[in-house]
Amino acid sequence: MPVSLTSPLLTDLYQLTMIQGYLARDMQAPAVFEFFVRKLPRERNFLVAAGLEQALEYLEGLSFSEEEIDWLRGTGRFRPDLLRWLEKLRFTGSVWAVPEGTVVFQDEPILRVVAPLPQAQLVESRLINLLHFQSLIASKAVRCVLAAPGKLLVDFGMRRAHGAEAALYAARAAWIAGFSGTATVSAGARFGIPVFGTMAHSFVQAHDSETEAFRDFARAQPDNVVLLIDTYDTERAAHKVVRLQRELAAEGIRIRGVRIDSGDLERHAGNVRRILDEGGCGHVTIFSSGSLDEHRLAALLGAGAPIDGFGVGTLLDTSADRPYLDCAYKLEEYAGVPRRKRSEGKATWPGRKQVWRQVRDGLFHHDVLTVQGDPQPGRALLREVMRNGRRLEAPESLEVIRVRLREQLRMLPEPLRGLAPAPPYEVRVSPALQALAEEADRHVRD
Amino acid sequence: MPVSLTSPLLTDLYQLTMIQGYLARDMQAPAVFEFFVRKLPRERNFLVAAGLEQALEYLEGLSFSEEEIDWLRGTGRFRPDLLRWLEKLRFTGSVWAVPEGTVVFQDEPILRVVAPLPQAQLVESRLINLLHFQSLIASKAVRCVLAAPGKLLVDFGMRRAHGAEAALYAARAAWIAGFSGTATVSAGARFGIPVFGTMAHSFVQAHDSETEAFRDFARAQPDNVVLLIDTYDTERAAHKVVRLQRELAAEGIRIRGVRIDSGDLERHAGNVRRILDEGGCGHVTIFSSGSLDEHRLAALLGAGAPIDGFGVGTLLDTSADRPYLDCAYKLEEYAGVPRRKRSEGKATWPGRKQVWRQVRDGLFHHDVLTVQGDPQPGRALLREVMRNGRRLEAPESLEVIRVRLREQLRMLPEPLRGLAPAPPYEVRVSPALQALAEEADRHVRD
Repeated sequence: MPVSLTSPLLTDLYQLTMIQGYLARDMQAPAVFEFFVRKLPRERNFLVAAGLEQALEYLEGLSFSEEEIDWLRGTGRFRPDLLRWLEKLRFTGSVWAVPEGTVVFQDEPILRVVAPLPQAQLVESRLINLLHFQSLIASKAVRCVLAAPGKLLVDFGMRRAHGAEAALYAARAAWIAGFSGTATVSAGARFGIPVFGTMAHSFVQAHDSETEAFRDFARAQPDNVVLLIDTYDTERAAHKVVRLQRELAAEGIRIRGVRIDSGDLERHAGNVRRILDEGGCGHVTIFSSGSLDEHRLAALLGAGAPIDGFGVGTLLDTSADRPYLDCAYKLEEYAGVPRRKRSEGKATWPGRKQVWRQVRDGLFHHDVLTVQGDPQPGRALLREVMRNGRRLEAPESLEVIRVRLREQLRMLPEPLRGLAPAPPYEVRVSPALQALAEEADRHVRD
Repeated sequence: MPVSLTSPLLTDLYQLTMIQGYLARDMQAPAVFEFFVRKLPRERNFLVAAGLEQALEYLEGLSFSEEEIDWLRGTGRFRPDLLRWLEKLRFTGSVWAVPEGTVVFQDEPILRVVAPLPQAQLVESRLINLLHFQSLIASKAVRCVLAAPGKLLVDFGMRRAHGAEAALYAARAAWIAGFSGTATVSAGARFGIPVFGTMAHSFVQAHDSETEAFRDFARAQPDNVVLLIDTYDTERAAHKVVRLQRELAAEGIRIRGVRIDSGDLERHAGNVRRILDEGGCGHVTIFSSGSLDEHRLAALLGAGAPIDGFGVGTLLDTSADRPYLDCAYKLEEYAGVPRRKRSEGKATWPGRKQVWRQVRDGLFHHDVLTVQGDPQPGRALLREVMRNGRRLEAPESLEVIRVRLREQLRMLPEPLRGLAPAPPYEVRVSPALQALAEEADRHVRD
């Protein structure tokens, strides 16, 4: 049957079969689940929380259509009481979360759900799906921002992002991280993110002459003339740009920039800069793209390549060096009793947790992970954002989120800002939380 | 504004600005674009084409809503003639493509669009987005299938797939590649793919005793009892399963399987198999999951681990070892003249192309890449699937696609079937195509 991409059927089957089990025993007491990243990948010294807005939208809008219920019934796998429960389902729980744009580390809850067990269980798969992806991309994009301070950075990744939603949310996450904008038009429409664009090789190829292509493009877009100069021979094309600028000056058209998308970007950018400057085109900026990531940006700028802006595409939108985070959404308490799993290498901290961040001399010094209601020095990161299924505040603007992250980046200790793997930031586990873990283990009977 | 995920605004801005340029010069002659992978990654010895069905759906349904046009107008960036053109837009071109489930190699067109230049240009970003992702995942999944012949393989990746569409289409691509099914319910609803599920750690944790959790689950799902046994201690849990099976036998309930999700899977599976067999539970199968990919499957099975099935999740749905393909959608002909770009390291073959595959002794021997209308020995891979914007055939069933791939896998030479990098499969470029490339280069004037 036709299913919308964001249907509540976008979940793992076991959520439904487990709920059937919970309903059979009337296990509907409050459950506490927390979403967190177990371990930071070697390629990331810190993470940026993102995707909360979409997670809250999902929870607010959660409901099954008649058609979806009918399909479930038709599979013959589900009991009538489950179907009735799904029919009436609305999310009625509370959510605590760190605000988007917050720097987070291993084991720190990014979001907590407190809701009747079957509800809190059902939403697991999609909450992870939403929070994981945007946090993944924001955490990658911020490295580009740190590697190329002050440069124009544009998300170019839509075409090789993993599907429609990835493209849209990657643009959002990159913007949160400090990118200047995106090439993806729908991200402009949906989120108000600035949209950038130049031209493709096909535009040049469709013309019989490169100069003619440049001239046509400039006249059709006189306010935003950025010309792609590597279709045939980059340096020759730069000379054409110089000649064309002289011609177009008479029409009042100013060429704004050129883009180089292939070859040795450092060498080409140097040559092109010289050709442009010698030709009186000092105002024309150089924009580059093609297999870029934070390491290439750092290398190009470190070598002094005269590049003013970068289109970062595939390697950003797929987070190519590490396309996933080791994250989890785990039951930490049920019916007032703390819980945790002890699976090898995957043990978790039980209970409702809070993170306290201590700042010294204007820099993050360490965090303390503890149970809620155990105040520590510093600032608490999680706050209540939804109660009884209703948001407590209007959605944050993306601008507020961007500024939050920008301010936190200033407080990030130097080794964590770098691209090389740094010693992990210290996240201390409080005595109260350690005691709770022991208590949780005592509760388990055979 | 609210924008649907699959809005035609899901495109790169430069498509719209280029079309503005094309319209200004009335460049609306037929253009030929082809989608192909330039170079196979080291981690893949062959690729599997997938996503054609979604590409054709997209082309058939392409149109802008009034609201979308209004938004574009409101940006102030676009001329009235472009907006009028978009308002009336329907895709009226032809499409040639290799059928889904076809094994393909470097430089071989997977899809060709022939349409008035602005149309063929506009659809670039989303066509790549659709074809790239499913081909990426099918090409990863098929390696798992080859590594674990005859085993039950289930896509478990929804939660860490990159968004909603990635989750849904990864399930489809894995099914095409020969997986047994998916855990993603909406993929079952949308595509009729078999859906599998067990239980999560939270189900065990929510109970005060593991045995009680197993018993509750079994009674709620008597037809599909698969118990997760690694929440606390895997071997102890296996003993509980044995005792529980004796108890449940009286109720006519048969435990179907156990799942192990952490620790040393080889060791645990061996221990668990022994405990089950000694306890009279020889019928209980062992299913495992947790950071699996084709290499782990091969290692586990190579070591003789008694595992009957695998849940393959994150590393599949993100194609983690290579989360993107070096693919492109390039202009190959405009207004009857062959075109190509010569950018360093990115030169392409011009013209409308066909691929001929030659089989010897039941195995793929080599392919010939040539211009259309230059028949070669063997079988031609591309066929016309859409004309004047209408499909020429009903959509293929997924079963047909699966069988196609299965048959092709039998014809794959041995080194290409392995997980280790093999010497590239031979794709010969015909003299006719080489001559056309020279002709294309001669056409370019300054």
